[in-house]
Amino acid sequence: MKKIVVIGAAGTLGQAVSAELKARNEVIEVGATRGQYRADITDPASVEQLFREIGKVDGVVSATGKVHFGPLPDMSVEQFWVGLRDKLMGQVNVVLAAQHYMNDGGSFTLTSGILADEPIRLGASATTVNLALEGFVRGAAIELPRGIRINVVSPTVLTEALDAYAPFFRGFEPVTAQRAALAYVRSVEGAETGRVYRVGY
Amino acid sequence: MKKIVVIGAAGTLGQAVSAELKARNEVIEVGATRGQYRADITDPASVEQLFREIGKVDGVVSATGKVHFGPLPDMSVEQFWVGLRDKLMGQVNVVLAAQHYMNDGGSFTLTSGILADEPIRLGASATTVNLALEGFVRGAAIELPRGIRINVVSPTVLTEALDAYAPFFRGFEPVTAQRAALAYVRSVEGAETGRVYRVGY
Ligand SMILES: NC(=O)c1ccc[n+]([C@@H]2O[C@H](COP(=O)([O-])OP(=O)(O)OC[C@H]3O[C@@H](n4cnc5c(N)ncnc54)[C@H](OP(=O)(O)O)[C@@H]3O)[C@@H](O)[C@H]2O)c1
Ligand SMILES: NC(=O)c1ccc[n+]([C@@H]2O[C@H](COP(=O)([O-])OP(=O)(O)OC[C@H]3O[C@@H](n4cnc5c(N)ncnc54)[C@H](OP(=O)(O)O)[C@@H]3O)[C@@H](O)[C@H]2O)c1
Repeated sequence: MKKIVVIGAAGTLGQAVSAELKARNEVIEVGATRGQYRADITDPASVEQLFREIGKVDGVVSATGKVHFGPLPDMSVEQFWVGLRDKLMGQVNVVLAAQHYMNDGGSFTLTSGILADEPIRLGASATTVNLALEGFVRGAAIELPRGIRINVVSPTVLTEALDAYAPFFRGFEPVTAQRAALAYVRSVEGAETGRVYRVGY
Repeated sequence: MKKIVVIGAAGTLGQAVSAELKARNEVIEVGATRGQYRADITDPASVEQLFREIGKVDGVVSATGKVHFGPLPDMSVEQFWVGLRDKLMGQVNVVLAAQHYMNDGGSFTLTSGILADEPIRLGASATTVNLALEGFVRGAAIELPRGIRINVVSPTVLTEALDAYAPFFRGFEPVTAQRAALAYVRSVEGAETGRVYRVGY
């Protein structure tokens, strides 16, 4: 059995990813306020502490990340920083720390989102952060040693999140979290690296 | 005559861009330590002060930006932040502030680089930052009001920079700064928005 850490395991996406992975893997659930382990991935010391506790692993999935949505003409520098600190550097912090706890051939699977490719009103920060994550994966894939792989899943809006997000995503076709979770399974249990798995678009 | 601000005008790329634009535009040269105007674009207050002094403009070109190059297994979180603070947020700061000083139909032209598309060893931060900039341009292009446009130029390594960068770019075909400068002219004097102009690859 592979030992796979899922960060954000209690979230909309993370729940579905954990459920799919549990069929064939040992899943270690991490959250900010819920789950077997707690960490704040925006704090590098907290990430380091988390992996010191967990020890060696065969995979890390991250399904977390906040960005600020708002009109560009009113966006403050501070609001723009939110997504860089949280969704982008939270996930980068995890890779920088956890690479040293990853077994040979293990994998990282990060989360971006459809706004990387399809911009929407109020979404300039989200598009920036999502493409940044895809850049990080492209760059890191050729540098990670010992057969360690890294991919990113970019889902369209989730059916389960439409209550909150529908006004942002008029005309976008949603997918279920369960369908999005399959892409994480491909990344964790497959052999590719440096891939962006787009789901539902 | 259009009034075009070139930030980084004394740099390798900026010199060539200024020279090309001067043929048909009023060029205002900005640098950190050299040029008609001085500013530190990593400091939002300095950017705001710059545009308060310059007033209304028809275009802003940014040809600046530092990132940290180093092996991923040794990269510190702090080193990763360098490129986010400097090359990414420096240019974002400029757009967030200068949009309010831009005349109708004016343009922003930012700078990314070939590492967005072509990763190299030691370059994970550069690839992240360059794609982030392309994401920002994609997102901002559909939100900027009054016909204001935004594009990004992504040059391959410059002939003039090979002394410093050749070891990073083995096998890459360089272009002259003058050839790269043409893409900035297309952005400033053309009509497109949301474009990535790749030069030399
Ligand atoms: N929902 C969508 O439609 C959708 C579509 C495409 C992409 N995405 C992306 O997918 C990711 C997850 O979205 P979601 O809707 O599943 O979010 P969610 O339901 O809010 O879940 C987020 C999860 O991340 C954990 N978390 C938050 N901040 C953390 C931190 N600093 N350190 C550690 N854990 C943290 C939360 O922990 P607690 O449970 O303990 O609070 C929670 O388990 C986001 O990046 C989002 O942009 C979402
Ligand atoms: N050189 C290449 O081969 C190449 C290829 C592709 C992309 N690029 C990208 O093109 C951009 C410019 O590269 P370059 O080689 O032309 O750089 P450069 O020769 O070092 O010039 C940088 C310019 O930016 C100014 N500057 C630096 N930091 C600043 C700040 N915080 N605020 C305001 N101005 C600042 C400098 O001002 P002072 O003159 O006053 O110091 C200088 O004029 C970078 O983003 C680089 O990644 C370069």
